[in-house]
Amino acid sequence: MMTMIMIKVEKMVGITQLMEDKVLMAFASYATIVLSKMMFMSTATAFYRLTRKVFANPEDCANFGKGENAKKYLRVDDRVERVRRAHLNDLENIVPFLGIGLLYSLSGPDLSTAILHFRLFVGARIYHTIAYLLPLPQPNRALAFFVGYGVTISMAYQLLTNRLYL
Amino acid sequence: MMTMIMIKVEKMVGITQLMEDKVLMAFASYATIVLSKMMFMSTATAFYRLTRKVFANPEDCANFGKGENAKKYLRVDDRVERVRRAHLNDLENIVPFLGIGLLYSLSGPDLSTAILHFRLFVGARIYHTIAYLLPLPQPNRALAFFVGYGVTISMAYQLLTNRLYL
Amino acid sequence: MMTMIMIKVEKMVGITQLMEDKVLMAFASYATIVLSKMMFMSTATAFYRLTRKVFANPEDCANFGKGENAKKYLRVDDRVERVRRAHLNDLENIVPFLGIGLLYSLSGPDLSTAILHFRLFVGARIYHTIAYLLPLPQPNRALAFFVGYGVTISMAYQLLTNRLYL
Repeated sequence: MMTMIMIKVEKMVGITQLMEDKVLMAFASYATIVLSKMMFMSTATAFYRLTRKVFANPEDCANFGKGENAKKYLRVDDRVERVRRAHLNDLENIVPFLGIGLLYSLSGPDLSTAILHFRLFVGARIYHTIAYLLPLPQPNRALAFFVGYGVTISMAYQLLTNRLYL
Repeated sequence: MMTMIMIKVEKMVGITQLMEDKVLMAFASYATIVLSKMMFMSTATAFYRLTRKVFANPEDCANFGKGENAKKYLRVDDRVERVRRAHLNDLENIVPFLGIGLLYSLSGPDLSTAILHFRLFVGARIYHTIAYLLPLPQPNRALAFFVGYGVTISMAYQLLTNRLYL
Repeated sequence: MMTMIMIKVEKMVGITQLMEDKVLMAFASYATIVLSKMMFMSTATAFYRLTRKVFANPEDCANFGKGENAKKYLRVDDRVERVRRAHLNDLENIVPFLGIGLLYSLSGPDLSTAILHFRLFVGARIYHTIAYLLPLPQPNRALAFFVGYGVTISMAYQLLTNRLYL
């Protein structure tokens, strides 16, 4: 009987058990999806740079011509700048979601409340990207932004009211 | 007595117990505060864009005029660019603090040393924002930047000397 | 014997034990290294701004002249912009690595597979910086970018196939 207890303990405290927690598993899934979506923005930028021949660095357009001939590709393009603004907006909003969301997930929230937060955030950021890239008329993008912003503030509020330690 | 031990074990290993750790609770509080401050920069940008009528996307100023008339609002403004530079500087510095700070918090540091690090960082970043937005004369902003930078390097140094595993 | 077991349990479940996990220790080491490298970009920007007298804010060049005389230093410089593009590319790629890599590390991957991922990512990002700052001819920078990108996608794929919970 002694032995049996010790095995149980060994099994329970392994680090992999952390990921048996449903809230943390859900956070891992939604965070991975929204980060993969953000990484897609790099691909979109590369796609527009190559198809429109719009580059920021001389070495990037060396294949398209020599010397002065290549310099004409060092230019700014509306389409590329739009993707880059969407990418930067993602960074500005997904970084707080990652930090606050991870700590919120570890603080023992109700599972369905937590999943509602994650779903709203990821849905809002995907809609934000669609609204930015098409583009859809305002206030589509603004609403998507504020839903994501509100979700993060809601998690921050719950963390600070339940676990404040300064 | 057997039963009593097992209950104790069950209670201790739940994921929510992670957040009973005082260093992690303190990190969660300070990280949430500094991320909320960073999110405030989005609101400040939106405020200046709307009050000064300075926009980056045609769909954002569609309410202010039609066609060519709206295009005059697609411009660059010193005040807006200043907020955006402050926001980007936040991102560049708060991301390392989040990553290194979380791992440092999990590595079992002394509680009062850890809290000193967190307080200095958060105070320095709040002062950095004030110094950037007012603006205060240099070297106010530079000093705030270097205090935050030094705190992160100090935590990185302690992590790498205590827990290096390559 | 009772007492002995209880001591063992106490020792095992402390938060500092999380960092006894080799995968998490390795992640902490590589993440700290790559974040420190990213922070070095701030220093490189400051170095080029000061040596080339290229500033973004009027208060930063107040020492170099008064009024109109100082304004000539508010300019854009190729070298500074190159460092800033490298820095932003770091942010765009290291943020997904931090988020996905941490959750992947907690999901109980094979140690040597995990370390291979971390090494490839950190090596690729260091090479990316060298290729960007020298600069090296393409496709050096592009290959470094895609190796880092591929490593993050590989960890994301493993997380989503093993631990999906939506």
